[in-house]
Amino acid sequence: MPEEQKRQHREDDHIVYVGAKPFMAYVTGVVMQFTTQGAKEVVVKSRGKFISKAVDISEVAVKRFLVGQIEVKNVKIGSEEFINNEGRKVNVSFIEITLGMKQ
Amino acid sequence: MPEEQKRQHREDDHIVYVGAKPFMAYVTGVVMQFTTQGAKEVVVKSRGKFISKAVDISEVAVKRFLVGQIEVKNVKIGSEEFINNEGRKVNVSFIEITLGMKQ
Repeated sequence: MPEEQKRQHREDDHIVYVGAKPFMAYVTGVVMQFTTQGAKEVVVKSRGKFISKAVDISEVAVKRFLVGQIEVKNVKIGSEEFINNEGRKVNVSFIEITLGMKQ
Repeated sequence: MPEEQKRQHREDDHIVYVGAKPFMAYVTGVVMQFTTQGAKEVVVKSRGKFISKAVDISEVAVKRFLVGQIEVKNVKIGSEEFINNEGRKVNVSFIEITLGMKQ
C-alpha cells in the first residue's frame, strides 16, 4: 500500500501495525522500540477487528513490561473507506495509540 | 444549586455499554440519546473483544447518522483486573469514547 509505504519512510516515526501475528510479537516490538531503538514515542496502529488487540498490547506494554517508564499519551480513532476484494466500497475503523516515555 | 446539579447528573448518565447485542441497537441507542434525550455528550464504553465494536459504532454514529452534528471529543483506554468465573485474576482492557455535540 502506497499510503503505508509513505508513512514508513519517515525515519523518526516508530510505528507498530497490529495484525494477525501472535500477541506477544507486537508487545515485544513496542518494548524493543523504546529499549533498543531509543524511541521517545511509539504509535500502535490497527484496523477493524484488530483494534481490541492493539489496546491489549498497549496496556500490557505499559503495565507489565515498561512499568513506570511509559504511558498512554494519546488515543485517536477514525475510519477510512477502501475498496475490498470484491470491488465494493467498505468502511473500516482504525485506532492509533501513542505511547510515550514518562516525563 | 440543586437544579443545576440535577441537570449535570443527567448529562453524566448518557452512557452506552457495548456488548453482544446487534450492532445497530447500539448505534440507535447513541443517536437517540442525542436526538430525543437532549444529551450534549454520550460516552460509549466497552471491554475486551467488544472494543472494536465500540469504535465502529461511534464512527457510524458520527459519519452516517449525525453527520456534522457530533464528533469524537475524547478517547480513553485502560485496563482493569477482575476475578473471572473460575476465581482467577484476569486483566481486561476497556475503551471509553466520548461523543459530543459540535460547537
